[in-house]
Amino acid sequence: MNIGKYTFNEFKELAQCFHGYPAPGLLIGGYMVEAVKRKLPEGTLFEALIETTKCLPDAVQLLTLCSTGNAWMRVTNLGRYAVSLYDKYSFDGWRAAIDLEKLEKFPEVKAWFLKQKTKQEQDTDKLFVEIEKAGDQYLTITPVHIRPQYLKKKTSSAIVACPICREAYPKNDGAICRGCQGENPYRSVIQSPGYREPSPGLEYVPIEKAIGETALHDMTRIIPGKSKGPEFKAGQKIEAGDLCRLQQMGRSSIYVEGRTNVDTNKIKNL
Amino acid sequence: MNIGKYTFNEFKELAQCFHGYPAPGLLIGGYMVEAVKRKLPEGTLFEALIETTKCLPDAVQLLTLCSTGNAWMRVTNLGRYAVSLYDKYSFDGWRAAIDLEKLEKFPEVKAWFLKQKTKQEQDTDKLFVEIEKAGDQYLTITPVHIRPQYLKKKTSSAIVACPICREAYPKNDGAICRGCQGENPYRSVIQSPGYREPSPGLEYVPIEKAIGETALHDMTRIIPGKSKGPEFKAGQKIEAGDLCRLQQMGRSSIYVEGRTNVDTNKIKNL
Repeated sequence: MNIGKYTFNEFKELAQCFHGYPAPGLLIGGYMVEAVKRKLPEGTLFEALIETTKCLPDAVQLLTLCSTGNAWMRVTNLGRYAVSLYDKYSFDGWRAAIDLEKLEKFPEVKAWFLKQKTKQEQDTDKLFVEIEKAGDQYLTITPVHIRPQYLKKKTSSAIVACPICREAYPKNDGAICRGCQGENPYRSVIQSPGYREPSPGLEYVPIEKAIGETALHDMTRIIPGKSKGPEFKAGQKIEAGDLCRLQQMGRSSIYVEGRTNVDTNKIKNL
Repeated sequence: MNIGKYTFNEFKELAQCFHGYPAPGLLIGGYMVEAVKRKLPEGTLFEALIETTKCLPDAVQLLTLCSTGNAWMRVTNLGRYAVSLYDKYSFDGWRAAIDLEKLEKFPEVKAWFLKQKTKQEQDTDKLFVEIEKAGDQYLTITPVHIRPQYLKKKTSSAIVACPICREAYPKNDGAICRGCQGENPYRSVIQSPGYREPSPGLEYVPIEKAIGETALHDMTRIIPGKSKGPEFKAGQKIEAGDLCRLQQMGRSSIYVEGRTNVDTNKIKNL
């Protein structure tokens, strides 16, 4: 069975080029996306909601205009292999999922999907043949309505330069950018060559010298599996009793407000 | 200046097909990705880390094999327009960001990037000409090392059928799938046609009748801007004092453990 305008082999080729290899989940995803697309009235402006991070997002990106970078595709990891396409104004749409009862007739796909075989045991050619032959036969397609509160768009923000890394960031994120607030995924600190000295209004001080000073930005505490939230808020006065908690959060120095205020206009123009 | 193997216009065409329109950020992103790719030794197996959700992920997906669906691309929203490509084994790589000082020479790109003009004021053709002419001149390319703890892969899990929606999900997520645990983005509950009756071991009861019963799964409480974490844990006994909190969390009925235990083998085979 074809996958939209592609033959099975053309889509396999496309999957190889985009995804690195023709993953079974991506080929199955192709049938899922096309089955849902057919349900939408011609010309519908639609967006996508995907319930797994695995493979399926790439089927959506290859067969629709929805993508990670244009935010018409949302991935929310519920662990279910399912995709919905919905009218971007009415939030009405259709959802495709794999029906485990219908899947009984397709033993290769079933064994792959439920991870009943190891990669060594899996006969990939046989699996591909069955995926193509089955097409959309084991899918369940249901009408859905997305909860509007789930789709709230983020508000747009002015763009300013971060006084620490001197890179541009949305002003709504706070007095310094989120990377400099402690979410830095790099071993070293990001500093533009344009960086010369701390801006007026900023001081980075060891926590024992921060007592009595005012925190410049929210500081998040993550207790794995338990909670995630700002433990300290911007503008909060640091007290002696806070040092232990700051240390537990991995912070030996923090940004505090200096004598002058941060002049964001000045920052913006460097 | 060309964008990798593409002329500027070819890449613009590609952007149109994949992203829906040739967004300036995607074209600029093309130069960023290619500038970093050139830094990596030939044949490096690399992955991507992107610091913004906007446009840039699509440049990575169009110019590398990293994608949302194969998880070789990670998007962590730090609000900075920056991308890193790094060796997937050593975590060493290169990062491209926009240098605001260098950008001074490119007024159209600067005005667009810092949102200094409204869409109406923006002369798109002039902007495209400047983007092509500038190429990678306003970029800063720096070596980076990604913190390994940041890149932890999720462990693989057995796949079982959810006793509520009867769809497949990773067993590690709990006794029922995350969609049925309350993260359902749809107005109605997802139920496969295969759904007939609650499985043994499950009971969905109004909270006032749940006192003394045992919660079947974690229940998350989100206080916007404050915290997110499991307020109730699987196996926790529900007490009279909990009703108010459950109501505040929007739960009028909950799943509790029934008289028999959930037999996941039975569920797995439907």
